[in-house]
Amino acid sequence: MTGITQIPVSSPAGIAVFGHILSHGPVPRIDVARATGLSQAAVTKAVTVLIEDGFLEDEDAAAPPRAEAPLGRPANPLRVRAGRAQAIGVKVTADRVYAVRTDLIATPLAVTSRANPGTTPEAVLEQIAAVVAELSTAGTPISGVGITVSGDVDAQAGVVRDSPLMGWRDVPVAALLGERLGLPIVLENDVRALTIAEQMFGRGAGTHSFAMVTIGAGIGCGIFVNGAVVEGAHGVSGEIGHLPLAPGNLVCSCGRRGCVETIASSAAIVTAVRRALGNHTLDMPAVVELARAGDVAARTAFADAGETIGSALAALVNLIGPQRVIIAGEAVGEYDLYAERIRKAFAEHAFGSALNCEIIVASHTFEEWARGGAVAVIREIARGRG
Amino acid sequence: MTGITQIPVSSPAGIAVFGHILSHGPVPRIDVARATGLSQAAVTKAVTVLIEDGFLEDEDAAAPPRAEAPLGRPANPLRVRAGRAQAIGVKVTADRVYAVRTDLIATPLAVTSRANPGTTPEAVLEQIAAVVAELSTAGTPISGVGITVSGDVDAQAGVVRDSPLMGWRDVPVAALLGERLGLPIVLENDVRALTIAEQMFGRGAGTHSFAMVTIGAGIGCGIFVNGAVVEGAHGVSGEIGHLPLAPGNLVCSCGRRGCVETIASSAAIVTAVRRALGNHTLDMPAVVELARAGDVAARTAFADAGETIGSALAALVNLIGPQRVIIAGEAVGEYDLYAERIRKAFAEHAFGSALNCEIIVASHTFEEWARGGAVAVIREIARGRG
Repeated sequence: MTGITQIPVSSPAGIAVFGHILSHGPVPRIDVARATGLSQAAVTKAVTVLIEDGFLEDEDAAAPPRAEAPLGRPANPLRVRAGRAQAIGVKVTADRVYAVRTDLIATPLAVTSRANPGTTPEAVLEQIAAVVAELSTAGTPISGVGITVSGDVDAQAGVVRDSPLMGWRDVPVAALLGERLGLPIVLENDVRALTIAEQMFGRGAGTHSFAMVTIGAGIGCGIFVNGAVVEGAHGVSGEIGHLPLAPGNLVCSCGRRGCVETIASSAAIVTAVRRALGNHTLDMPAVVELARAGDVAARTAFADAGETIGSALAALVNLIGPQRVIIAGEAVGEYDLYAERIRKAFAEHAFGSALNCEIIVASHTFEEWARGGAVAVIREIARGRG
Repeated sequence: MTGITQIPVSSPAGIAVFGHILSHGPVPRIDVARATGLSQAAVTKAVTVLIEDGFLEDEDAAAPPRAEAPLGRPANPLRVRAGRAQAIGVKVTADRVYAVRTDLIATPLAVTSRANPGTTPEAVLEQIAAVVAELSTAGTPISGVGITVSGDVDAQAGVVRDSPLMGWRDVPVAALLGERLGLPIVLENDVRALTIAEQMFGRGAGTHSFAMVTIGAGIGCGIFVNGAVVEGAHGVSGEIGHLPLAPGNLVCSCGRRGCVETIASSAAIVTAVRRALGNHTLDMPAVVELARAGDVAARTAFADAGETIGSALAALVNLIGPQRVIIAGEAVGEYDLYAERIRKAFAEHAFGSALNCEIIVASHTFEEWARGGAVAVIREIARGRG
C-alpha cells in the first residue's frame, strides 16, 4: 500500500474537500462548504492547492466567473481532473482474473481478462502480471494496482490470510506483485472493494449507511457506516457467510460448523439437489433449470438458502441498522428463486424499525468487481499525505 | 435533543480539537495537532475560542509559559474546564430509576435513585422528574438530562419506540419530560449510552473499534467503529439479543422466534431450570446457588446460555471485526458460570483472524449506567454549533 502518489493536502479539511468533490462533483464551492461543515475560506485554501497540483479543476475553466459569484469567488462548479491519475483494478476468481484500467474518477478506460491455468498463487500472480502489463500504457502513469480476492484479507499487511475459494493461506500478494510489477499494490477483500466503489461512486453515495451482501459461490458482505467501510481491527469484517445460523451438523468449506454458506452458497444448493435427486452430475445451471421447471427438490434448496440468507440479513440489520442493503453477487441472476423466503425470514427476524431497511438487488459484471480494486487505489490517493 | 448549549465552534477542526482534549486531556497542543492531523495554527485558533468561552483551560494557567515552548506558544497541557457545564444522566429500569449529576468531564458529583410504583410511562416519568429535581442545584445550571432506556429507542425523535423490558411502545419521552422539566432532554438506548461513555471516558478510549455486549435481563450491544457509536439509520442497532441464533420453537419476549434471548437472558435461564426441576418458585439467586453447588440442570442452563452468547459474539466479530469486546451487564457477577462455553463457542465460530479479538469482562453499577446518560448530553455539547 506504499508509494501511491496522494493528494497534496494532509489536513482533515483538505481531505474532506477532495473526498466530497470526488464523490459528488461537479459541485459549487459553497456546496462543498455546506456539506463538509468548513468555512468558505478553508474550502478555498484546500481547493487552491488541489487545483495547482492538477487534482481539481473548474468545470468550465475557460468561462469567466459568473456574475452572481459571492465575494468575487468563482461560482464555477469544481470537479476532479479525471486524467490526473490512472489506476488498475483486478478481481481474482478461481477460473479467471479480470482487470480494468480507470481514470481518477473510476471511469473504465480498458478491460481485459485471462484464464488461470491453475489456482496456485504462482499461477494466478503470473496472470495478474500479464493483465496489468496489457493494460499499462505509455501515456499517463499508473498510480497503483488494486488486487481484490475473496476471504480473510489483511489489507494493511498486503497478505491474503485465508481464501477458501482460492485455497490460499498467508500469501503476501502485495510484496510478491509489487516487486514484480514495480508498481504500488493495494490488496483488498473483493466485497469490501466493491462496497468502497458503491460508496464513492455508486448506489451508496450520499447514504447514512449501507451494507452490500453478495450471494453466490460465497456469501460476503461489505459495511459502510460512520463515514467509512468497516475494515476490521484484525483484518476480518463482513463475513456474513460464516455467521453460525445453520444447523451444527453441516460443515463449511472453511472447516467450521453451521455457517450460513453450508446452506446458502451455490455449492450447498447444488449438493442438496444432487443428494435429493441421486444425480451427482448436476451443476448450477441444471439446478436453476430444474427449479424454474417446478422441481420440488430444487425449489426447496433455493428456499432453504433464501431462509438462511434472510435470517443473516436480519442479523446484520439488527446489529448495524444500515439505511439500505444492496444484494449483489453472481446468484442475483436467479434472485427470483430466493426472493420470497429471503423477504419472509428477514421480516420475521428484523427487530423493530430495522424492518424499515431498504433492500435492493443489483448485479455487477466481473469488470465492475475489478473496478472495485481500482477504486481501492483511488481511495488511497484521496487519503492525502499523512 | 434541542436547546443544549454547545461549544462555540462549528468547524470539523474545532470539534476534533475539543473532542480529543475531552477524552485525552490534559494534553499539550502539539499532541492535539498530531492526533487530529491539524496544523498547529488550526489548533491554536480553535483553542483560543474555546478558552475564551470557558470550555478549555491551561492545566496550570497561573504558571509562566515553559522555557521550551516552541515559537512562543504555551507548552502547558490543555484540559477541559470541568466546571463549565453539568449534566444529569438517568438509567431507567423496571424497578427503579437511577440518576447521577456530573461535570463536563463526566465526573459524578451526586447520585440518587427511586423505586418505581409501576412501569407505566406516567409512573416512571414522575420518578424521573423527582430525581432530576433532587439533583438540580442552584449553582451551575444543568445543560441537559440524558435519559437511557433499553430497547428500540429513536434518539433523533426522542421517542422510545419499543422497550419490551419496560412494556413501552411509542412513548415520546423527550417531549413529555422536556416540557415538564424545562431542560433539554437527550434520549438514548441504555447500552449505546454506556458505550459512548466507555468510548469517550473509559475502556474504549483510544481503540480502533470496540463493542460492548451486556448480558442479563436483556442481551444488548453497543458498537464503536469508524470513529463513532453506531446509531442505526432507522433507530435500531446493536440488537444482539435478537439475532436468530436459537431454535425456532422458542418464542422471545419481543414476539419473534429463535432470538438469542430465548436461551441466554436471565429469564430464559430461570425458566429452563424451573422446568427441569419442576420448581416454579426458583428465582435467579436460587438458580445461581444451585449452579454453584453443581446442580446439573442449573449448570446446563448457564452452559446453553453461554453457548448462544459465544455464537452471538462470533457473529458480531465476524461482521464488524472490533479490536475489543467488553462483556458487561448485571449477569457478569455470575460470569464464571457462562465463561467456558462462551469461550468455546466463540472459538468455534470466529472466522480467521477475528479470533484475535480481545474479550474482556467489566462490571458497571447502576450509577455508571446512569452516567452513560450524562455522557450522551456531554457528547451533544461537544458536537459544536452546527
